[in-house]
Amino acid sequence: MWTMNMAVLHLPVYTVLLVGYVQAGVADGDVTPRLTFSYNAKERTAKRFSASGVVNFTTLHLSNEDKTLYVGAREILFALNLTDISEVTLHRNFTWETPDRKREECSFKGKDLQKDCFNYIKIFLRVNNTHLYVCGTYAFSPTCAYIKTDNFSLVKSDSGEVVTEDGRSRCPFNPEYKSTAIIADGELYAGTVSNFQGNEPIIYKSLSQGTSLKTENSLNWLQDPAFVGSAYIQESLPKGNEVGDDDKIYFFFSEVGKEFDFFDNTLVSRIARVCKGDLGGERVLQKKWTTFLKAQLLCSLPDDGFPFNIIQDMFVLTPSPEDWKNTVFYGVFTSQWYKGASGSSAVCSFTMDQVVEAFNGRYREVNRETQQWYTYNHPVPEPRPGMCITNEARKQDIPSSLRMPDKVLNFVKDHFLMDSVIRSSPLLLKRNAHYTQIAVHRVQTGSKVYHVLFVGTDDGRLHKAININGKMHIIEEMVLFRNSQPVLNIELDTEKGQLYISSFSELVEVPIANCTNYQSCGECVLSRDPYCAWDGSQCVDIRQTPPNKAWQQSIVEADTATNL
Amino acid sequence: MWTMNMAVLHLPVYTVLLVGYVQAGVADGDVTPRLTFSYNAKERTAKRFSASGVVNFTTLHLSNEDKTLYVGAREILFALNLTDISEVTLHRNFTWETPDRKREECSFKGKDLQKDCFNYIKIFLRVNNTHLYVCGTYAFSPTCAYIKTDNFSLVKSDSGEVVTEDGRSRCPFNPEYKSTAIIADGELYAGTVSNFQGNEPIIYKSLSQGTSLKTENSLNWLQDPAFVGSAYIQESLPKGNEVGDDDKIYFFFSEVGKEFDFFDNTLVSRIARVCKGDLGGERVLQKKWTTFLKAQLLCSLPDDGFPFNIIQDMFVLTPSPEDWKNTVFYGVFTSQWYKGASGSSAVCSFTMDQVVEAFNGRYREVNRETQQWYTYNHPVPEPRPGMCITNEARKQDIPSSLRMPDKVLNFVKDHFLMDSVIRSSPLLLKRNAHYTQIAVHRVQTGSKVYHVLFVGTDDGRLHKAININGKMHIIEEMVLFRNSQPVLNIELDTEKGQLYISSFSELVEVPIANCTNYQSCGECVLSRDPYCAWDGSQCVDIRQTPPNKAWQQSIVEADTATNL
Repeated sequence: MWTMNMAVLHLPVYTVLLVGYVQAGVADGDVTPRLTFSYNAKERTAKRFSASGVVNFTTLHLSNEDKTLYVGAREILFALNLTDISEVTLHRNFTWETPDRKREECSFKGKDLQKDCFNYIKIFLRVNNTHLYVCGTYAFSPTCAYIKTDNFSLVKSDSGEVVTEDGRSRCPFNPEYKSTAIIADGELYAGTVSNFQGNEPIIYKSLSQGTSLKTENSLNWLQDPAFVGSAYIQESLPKGNEVGDDDKIYFFFSEVGKEFDFFDNTLVSRIARVCKGDLGGERVLQKKWTTFLKAQLLCSLPDDGFPFNIIQDMFVLTPSPEDWKNTVFYGVFTSQWYKGASGSSAVCSFTMDQVVEAFNGRYREVNRETQQWYTYNHPVPEPRPGMCITNEARKQDIPSSLRMPDKVLNFVKDHFLMDSVIRSSPLLLKRNAHYTQIAVHRVQTGSKVYHVLFVGTDDGRLHKAININGKMHIIEEMVLFRNSQPVLNIELDTEKGQLYISSFSELVEVPIANCTNYQSCGECVLSRDPYCAWDGSQCVDIRQTPPNKAWQQSIVEADTATNL
Repeated sequence: MWTMNMAVLHLPVYTVLLVGYVQAGVADGDVTPRLTFSYNAKERTAKRFSASGVVNFTTLHLSNEDKTLYVGAREILFALNLTDISEVTLHRNFTWETPDRKREECSFKGKDLQKDCFNYIKIFLRVNNTHLYVCGTYAFSPTCAYIKTDNFSLVKSDSGEVVTEDGRSRCPFNPEYKSTAIIADGELYAGTVSNFQGNEPIIYKSLSQGTSLKTENSLNWLQDPAFVGSAYIQESLPKGNEVGDDDKIYFFFSEVGKEFDFFDNTLVSRIARVCKGDLGGERVLQKKWTTFLKAQLLCSLPDDGFPFNIIQDMFVLTPSPEDWKNTVFYGVFTSQWYKGASGSSAVCSFTMDQVVEAFNGRYREVNRETQQWYTYNHPVPEPRPGMCITNEARKQDIPSSLRMPDKVLNFVKDHFLMDSVIRSSPLLLKRNAHYTQIAVHRVQTGSKVYHVLFVGTDDGRLHKAININGKMHIIEEMVLFRNSQPVLNIELDTEKGQLYISSFSELVEVPIANCTNYQSCGECVLSRDPYCAWDGSQCVDIRQTPPNKAWQQSIVEADTATNL
């Protein structure tokens, strides 16, 4: 009976599908969202959070264990209950204000009292089961502290004063500076600037009792970077494997590409990495990274090679820690050259295989006199410079970076840039949109796996998109905020199927799908929303549907998935 | 004795060479000319020609047979004696003015009387041993005529009136429009616009008694093109070869790249070609090209793929007509996106092999509904659409395009764009220069062959450059004209070793080298000028040196050529 229904359905469904396709195509190659929801659209209700006088929701940290969304704003921190972030009675919060003395100092140094001289929360991360770590710009005087999760308050000394730490090299001075931080295995890794002037970029490891590590500034390992993210990849897994590699921390940023000496100030996007077990060198590179390497990420049009050279955000999609080799890096990019009306953006993806290949490939070398960069074609010392300690190195009696031969460390000092460029063509190109943030959800429906992209714009819209046979389809567009303002953060809660999205003055919780919105079978199937399927009488969310329940959906044209 | 001298010379020569290299490198990757000559520099004397009230030296035609440089300017034509173009007593000229009636019509149609409504000479070519063909814009009413070379005057009827032809489809209406024309085997091939409004581009063949051929306008074979050149390549040679291919005419232009549907109005550079023997179709494509095909030329940076997408000029270097397979296409390109202070330019080269491969490769196809372009992956009718008549076709009883099957012609109507992009990385990149014209000279010195580039800028400078081990070296820069104005044409006289270069108000004759300028052995060798060598006592022009005479030069570092 059901089979017959399907047959009857086929014709109208594909007829309408074709129309939808042509409409998108006619718009001059640009991808047009199939549905657009205004701020007040009932069909796509969002839960909202804002508080009088509170601005700059710059930092989000989602904790499923605590059922809490931790939010850092200007001079205030929130713990919102995931049951309902808009429910005020479930909130906890406290202010962390900059003392007047600090603010005056900041102003005295020439900074804007009403803009720069506040405490903007830039780092808000979990350290262990009982504590969070928080850093703020603290009126151009970065400061960090611990928060106890049980009572959501700053850790204080016996005398009742907040125990603070110097935040330099962890948190930027300037609230506008693009920085990143991540905690891996109890250690903080930050990409930021380490001085008041903002001209000393750094990738810094610190926190535990061990030695802190830095990038070597005098060697220009970083060139005016703007950090957009970082990721912890457990490449030591699975335990006991033959290679015996170390876990790694990756950093994503744009910076001045000194290897492009033709155009002044050509920006390039980078992926950089360090090894978790790096302890610095014994004589050479003392207290400095011995494993810092970087490579170019290039997102460019396949035909004319036009580069979207500025990375705006990176989402690292790892199926599971053990399956790190299948990691996909999803980046949103804009171009330094093409501005257009309101710009244009591209989403590019890179695989772990590509990344590994680049870091295992040739190095570049600079001619110190001419400042030109060349491919380094000569023999390389052993163990391979910049690599983590592996079983191979242990066999050579090198159990840590402290025992790495000087010639290897001297080599890596000057050979931190890989020769290979990690390339991708855009998966998604969007005109008249400046993408700022991205989150990607790996969804399995039936036997198929889809990567659903959630992309935020600088005017407060969200695009939900999916790749169908190499072409992107924007399932829906939502206006997120009352006023047009940039999407600052997207946190994806895969367990609850919610997105938490922040901007300057507002925070919204949006379900990743609202299938009941599609009221007919045609609507439901045409949406190409992989979360939704028609069960014979209504459009259901397949994640909430019993596995033995029959449904159908049609993500790919002429390819109807069914669960009969 | 000479050998000893050389050994003594080595050290200082290389020391200075290295210094020169570093200087160029320090200038941030930009190529700095080794020597720069001002307008009045005695060392690099030029012969000059200008005439009171004469402007727009837009057309040059060099005729070694006549020992004459034919020059078309606004409303006047010159025949300059190559013995000395500045010698007024050797000139011949006549005016070809627009009648007042025509000028009034032009003004009446809304054109500028003082700018548009004159007769600008746009075509000035040799037809046969006794005649030249000339076309002018004739106050937005293009008109052509013949010139007898013996007395250098327009051919007149018995009644004494100039015999004119309608110049439409040969010569543009608007003097600013970028067009091209070439005479091959007595036929005129022109790339221009065919209407007053300037929105009907055309590639047109005409002149002899045979049928004229056009591009098919309704099918958008051309998209707002700006033609920069054309070339006649005798691919039928050598006579009696197995393939039995036809000669071809190539066109070079930039146009709107409709296949790039993401950015509005993305410009692309093209090479297009037609076969000399094309006669159009019998039923399909009647009086239209049956062999019109085009492909993209892409000059882009190797690292970030940044495209120099606008071709400004093309020089086709063919060693000899029989050796057409070794043709190299040298183009100068600028970018639509990067403007910088005064722009930047690139010289790219493409080989005939690359061109042949693209035209033998896949086609592109447009989806008429979505206007998107795709690779055409299906079977192609026989004989291969757009190819010339070859022995293979003749065997199939297809001796001309008139007998080509309808299915082949219907296919070529829609499949005129090749899928492959013909790519090149810049040979020469120059910041703060907008290149407008190029000529290339193939020079043999000893056993080595060099391609010397002569490139003109939009502010009246000439760069003489040579590729040394993959790096360009600008041997010298000359300021050509009294006032800063664009180089409009460069004609290279390989026999006499002279360049004829025109601009709006001036014409100069420059010897391709002035070796006596280099007064010491060091200077002579360091110049890396392939025309010059040190003969033991002075810097000589090796083209004027007896073959058994000893000399030395050093074009490539650490590679001293000698003729002992």
